Amino acid sequence: MTKRIDFQTDPTRYRHWRVAYDGAVATLFMDVDENGGLFDGYQLKLNSYDLGVDIELADIVQRMRFEHPEVGAVVLRSGKDRVFCAGANIRMLGLSTHAHKVNFCKFTNETRNTFEAAGVESGQHYICAIKGSCAGGGYELALACDHIILTDDGSSSVALPEVPLLAVLPGTGGLTRVTDKRKVRRDLADVFCSTEEGVRGKRALDWRLVDEVVANSKFEAAVAERAREFAGKSKPVEDLSGIALTPLLRAFGEDGSVRYSTVEVHIERANRLATIVISGPEEPAPKSLANLRAEGASTWMLRLARELDDAILHLRLNELEIGVIAFKSHGVAENVIAHERFVRDHAGGDWLAREIQLYWKRVLKRIDLTSRSLVGLIENGSCFAGVLAEILFACDRTYMMSGEFEGDNRATAAITLTDSNFGPHPMSNDLTRLKTRFLGDPGKVEAAARAKGRPLEADEASKLGLVTFVFDEVDWGDEIRIFLEERASFSPDAMTGMEANLRFPGPETMETRIFGRLTAWQNWIFQRPNAVGESGALKRYGSGVRGEYDMRRV
Amino acid sequence: MTKRIDFQTDPTRYRHWRVAYDGAVATLFMDVDENGGLFDGYQLKLNSYDLGVDIELADIVQRMRFEHPEVGAVVLRSGKDRVFCAGANIRMLGLSTHAHKVNFCKFTNETRNTFEAAGVESGQHYICAIKGSCAGGGYELALACDHIILTDDGSSSVALPEVPLLAVLPGTGGLTRVTDKRKVRRDLADVFCSTEEGVRGKRALDWRLVDEVVANSKFEAAVAERAREFAGKSKPVEDLSGIALTPLLRAFGEDGSVRYSTVEVHIERANRLATIVISGPEEPAPKSLANLRAEGASTWMLRLARELDDAILHLRLNELEIGVIAFKSHGVAENVIAHERFVRDHAGGDWLAREIQLYWKRVLKRIDLTSRSLVGLIENGSCFAGVLAEILFACDRTYMMSGEFEGDNRATAAITLTDSNFGPHPMSNDLTRLKTRFLGDPGKVEAAARAKGRPLEADEASKLGLVTFVFDEVDWGDEIRIFLEERASFSPDAMTGMEANLRFPGPETMETRIFGRLTAWQNWIFQRPNAVGESGALKRYGSGVRGEYDMRRV
Repeated sequence: MTKRIDFQTDPTRYRHWRVAYDGAVATLFMDVDENGGLFDGYQLKLNSYDLGVDIELADIVQRMRFEHPEVGAVVLRSGKDRVFCAGANIRMLGLSTHAHKVNFCKFTNETRNTFEAAGVESGQHYICAIKGSCAGGGYELALACDHIILTDDGSSSVALPEVPLLAVLPGTGGLTRVTDKRKVRRDLADVFCSTEEGVRGKRALDWRLVDEVVANSKFEAAVAERAREFAGKSKPVEDLSGIALTPLLRAFGEDGSVRYSTVEVHIERANRLATIVISGPEEPAPKSLANLRAEGASTWMLRLARELDDAILHLRLNELEIGVIAFKSHGVAENVIAHERFVRDHAGGDWLAREIQLYWKRVLKRIDLTSRSLVGLIENGSCFAGVLAEILFACDRTYMMSGEFEGDNRATAAITLTDSNFGPHPMSNDLTRLKTRFLGDPGKVEAAARAKGRPLEADEASKLGLVTFVFDEVDWGDEIRIFLEERASFSPDAMTGMEANLRFPGPETMETRIFGRLTAWQNWIFQRPNAVGESGALKRYGSGVRGEYDMRRV
Repeated sequence: MTKRIDFQTDPTRYRHWRVAYDGAVATLFMDVDENGGLFDGYQLKLNSYDLGVDIELADIVQRMRFEHPEVGAVVLRSGKDRVFCAGANIRMLGLSTHAHKVNFCKFTNETRNTFEAAGVESGQHYICAIKGSCAGGGYELALACDHIILTDDGSSSVALPEVPLLAVLPGTGGLTRVTDKRKVRRDLADVFCSTEEGVRGKRALDWRLVDEVVANSKFEAAVAERAREFAGKSKPVEDLSGIALTPLLRAFGEDGSVRYSTVEVHIERANRLATIVISGPEEPAPKSLANLRAEGASTWMLRLARELDDAILHLRLNELEIGVIAFKSHGVAENVIAHERFVRDHAGGDWLAREIQLYWKRVLKRIDLTSRSLVGLIENGSCFAGVLAEILFACDRTYMMSGEFEGDNRATAAITLTDSNFGPHPMSNDLTRLKTRFLGDPGKVEAAARAKGRPLEADEASKLGLVTFVFDEVDWGDEIRIFLEERASFSPDAMTGMEANLRFPGPETMETRIFGRLTAWQNWIFQRPNAVGESGALKRYGSGVRGEYDMRRV
């Protein structure tokens, strides 16, 4: 699997999904083209999916929020007759590298989370209407919806057959949502998750696996009614005509570099280093909502978010040997602040400003969850203010220039905090990054808040606890070099495990449990011979021969 | 590593620890005998430890609570000159099977947790007095203490060098306690955990890694003063003469069975099944505290707890191919209730009754955390009442006999709930097992509470949601057989991952994070070639040649 995986798509290119818009209700048909797999070697039978199917789905969910803000209910259903969805394609999993499996699961998890976020944040509620068999990743799609309707036709069922059938976990949030979201009793969950054929009809309702079981003859009416109800729930009265998410401007270089309009990615293979350089805005901030609307996808805040998101996904899936991502910026902090202030000030009353702010929340979470060492380099001439400073607080550590650097006439390095650092962008643990940072010393959050609005140079930033290290001209080059060399020499697995544990202290949420606990167990199992060995269940699937297991418990 | 690992020991047999008792202060010297490893092939240099060292430590902590209730402060220090503790022995880890590594870590984690429990529950506070190098598992011992004092002699340091040195995690609670207990700022934690040589002196204090840094000349005085302070804190005025934890009565059979006085373990290898049969008490409950004191370790509630604890540990470490543990009981429920009521009624005012109750909390947690499928079989003649019923709620699922069974004249199967099921034995998530069970339907906890005190036969127990399945004579035998056969055929790894996710819904605590998240990542890393492959860091350690890593991130 060496071709470049592209996370950019648009409706004209979809092969696996159709969307029908009807006022406040959208219907999303999953109709996977079995010959449309992202790679060779497998067919996407029975509405099973691979990363390509999920990239389209992520695009749909994203466009729903920007291009179709009028939608209040999204009905997710199958475009095929007898099957809802058979889950992730097993042959694809059997053929994939460990890294691809893990990254595939992470991306699908992030996409499932956007279903729930769309409901809570934007009143776009996902309703799952199940006819036919809904198994594994198929049921995990359902679990991510706000409401699940199952037809009672004597055969349609929900199932998580991974454990008995494939010797792996329902790893796209399945186990966690069964216990934490749907609160299925743990012994019933045990039975459900070890029953290949799943659960039908009234039992599915009694066990809390679905919200509604409807006779087949009344199914369509019930789905339509529920969609109307959800759609009518929560849409504020606003100007709800969407904007177009136009294609990203993007160019790939021979050396692996990527150039967007506001983001550049530089690759230094010897150091296993990618540097993401963010350019501050050159154009003034929008002056009015009409202005913002006219700028649409080209407004700096939205453009940067989309480009950064794409860059991160590209590095995750296509640049596996890159161990460290360094963030730099250059530009004028005041301009950054003007742009983000406009968005923040209007997020309460304007859907587009709000969606831009909410998208930043998702992009920052995507950074938090990126399994590479993240370092912020705060150099002279940088513009880490507000939402850009938030990227620093997502990093594992940060280095800041202090004092005069010979021949460097750029503005002295500074960080500027704004209201963006104190609320609108919580992490997966539901705390702001600064609250998470200062769990041991909450007074420091208040001290940081008092310093809002003015450029904080190295000494002050360090005293406030906002940066890890401060170096002057004498040490800066060497210290960064030593750090990068050292980091590049560590075992990537140990770094992944360490970062997964250190980045999310404090409270747990369903999201942190999915990414921290469920994912870790799935990754472990994805390594075990019982699943992926030559006689393992994933390799043997479809061969008619059962997996052979080493029966020792650990 | 095929010899039987024995979890029973006593002070006359210790090879690695010395304890000095002085009124309310005990001093615990770690002085590992480098030739006293549990297995051949490694030397326990520099106060490094293996499971054998930890078995002694667990025994000390346990005896401290029963034999030395007068102790209020335990000073943990090194019996060697220049080193505090170098952590888990690396060569031992390199030689161990995956299963042994994982079980070793789990047991050491459980033992570390008992340090903290002793402080919170029984006012026995562990104080760590560090001179010399305190690294890896050594610092994890310190982290589990209530207070850490580090001498400032220019060389003594604390360190978690696992990631840079060994390509594994500080997996005995290290990462979690750094973030959650000590609340070290995450970027400083990142620096600390990737710095082989650790942190000394004032920086260790500034970074919250220790509670106190003391000049070397004042170290002994400071330790003594802190011990007095902690010892004076919280001891209630009671009769504080301990009881002796006399040797368990125990016999191993050729077929793997184990026979204790109140517990029998039967092994059916074909089904990979161990059945633990608990006998209810035949003797009457103690009539007075004097009575209880006279019975000492032989009182049924304490005897059973110790035997059950030993049986579980034995199965975990010595019977790796056993996939399912079934719990059965036989006896008279009223007798169980009389014994546990006596303990519960006196737990408020009498230290021994309280320690017995608290020990049950630990034993039940040990069951929760046992990585085997747990099934409760509630047959006629059983006595699952109160604390024994709690074992059922720790199971993944339960089966109960219903109606007449031909030729079976034992009392009809019933469960009796008591106050023991509604408070004194919380799980690691800090909820009772019934609250955890009914997260989706809290009203059922109240309904169960209303049914306290009377025997609940199958129909009622099922209606109250207390059991998973109820079968009559016609189906009982087949259903159990099919379940056991099916369970025995599943991949043990998938079962482990599934159970780790389904057993602990609801809130997270430091404990659930250690066992659910940190452990999962460590297990994953313990499988990765970068750690355990032929060129991995664990295998190469001490050879002078660095580990070679596959640099792809996942």
